[in-house]
Amino acid sequence: MSRPLEVWFEFASTYSYPACSRVARLATDQAVPVVWKPFLLGPIFGAQGWETSPFNLYEAKGRYMWRDMERLCAAEGLPFARPAVFPRNTVAAARIACLGEAEPWLPAYVAAVYRANFAEGRDIADPAVLEDILAGLGLDAPAILDAAEGADNRPRLRANTDEAMARGVFGAPTFFVGDEMFWGSDRLDQALAWARAGAPDPV
Amino acid sequence: MSRPLEVWFEFASTYSYPACSRVARLATDQAVPVVWKPFLLGPIFGAQGWETSPFNLYEAKGRYMWRDMERLCAAEGLPFARPAVFPRNTVAAARIACLGEAEPWLPAYVAAVYRANFAEGRDIADPAVLEDILAGLGLDAPAILDAAEGADNRPRLRANTDEAMARGVFGAPTFFVGDEMFWGSDRLDQALAWARAGAPDPV
Repeated sequence: MSRPLEVWFEFASTYSYPACSRVARLATDQAVPVVWKPFLLGPIFGAQGWETSPFNLYEAKGRYMWRDMERLCAAEGLPFARPAVFPRNTVAAARIACLGEAEPWLPAYVAAVYRANFAEGRDIADPAVLEDILAGLGLDAPAILDAAEGADNRPRLRANTDEAMARGVFGAPTFFVGDEMFWGSDRLDQALAWARAGAPDPV
Repeated sequence: MSRPLEVWFEFASTYSYPACSRVARLATDQAVPVVWKPFLLGPIFGAQGWETSPFNLYEAKGRYMWRDMERLCAAEGLPFARPAVFPRNTVAAARIACLGEAEPWLPAYVAAVYRANFAEGRDIADPAVLEDILAGLGLDAPAILDAAEGADNRPRLRANTDEAMARGVFGAPTFFVGDEMFWGSDRLDQALAWARAGAPDPV
């Protein structure tokens, strides 16, 4: 009996794109229940004194990251094209994900938004793009957009972000199994193993 | 015929400890020639405006890193104990590594210094500790310490560090195969594959 894997993701986060793609596939194969947790990195970076992504602030690190993403996506068979604007404003996209956290359409929506941002050069800050993505999944896009911006739903993204900060999240993707935290696409396999077995390497 | 793998390492870098341990083992198994490149992260961090390790500057990231190191070293069967002082001053230890870059004793020296720093709680800034490490390898420790601090050898560490910065290195460990750069312990397998095959996933 596997424990749930919490997947904390941000639509602007480059490494969350291959990670969420692998989560959707591997968690199903391995019968690990996934809890999707959309959040915003902006307020977390802001609390560290950063006004934008560290990949923009630190040029050498940013240059390397884009090359690493090319290699990583090629190795995983994922399409990839560097977005013209980075990071995109992801508030609207993430509010929809909060609304759909437990909905069956959520994994397909997550995959489509990442593909739009990191493979198709689309502006995921644009509500028309989000509406088009939702409609492409056969959903009632106007109703979902309305509900996502409604007074009941809007606070959920801030609550997730506050919870992330309180639990020590400093980047994305971040995985939790209980209180055990794993940061980065490179830790997904370890996090899945932890979920399946409890603690395969208890230390 | 494998291309050489350049291993850029810093004795104060936590993730360089398991990485260098794996390099020594895997490169031999896979017949990949290793070029050891000791350098200093301090000047590179300083150029980014950081006066100490980002793991000290960013508390949540640092707390996670120590836990991740525990798990990583446990999984690799490496002893680990968080040093009382982090980062240690590694200038003297790195000058010795520059002197020994092409010497047969270099891999054993590298392993012993990392173990002293990250498993044995020893102060690798102390010349007496370095002398003891060298003597433990059956080497003429006083002669090596003298030569390492000699006018011929001292500029080599600065030259390596300048070269690292010029080539876009921003952390450790960093691997190069030709001009292809790989950052982090998690990219060692990919770098080794690149060295063996040229570019297994050319993108």
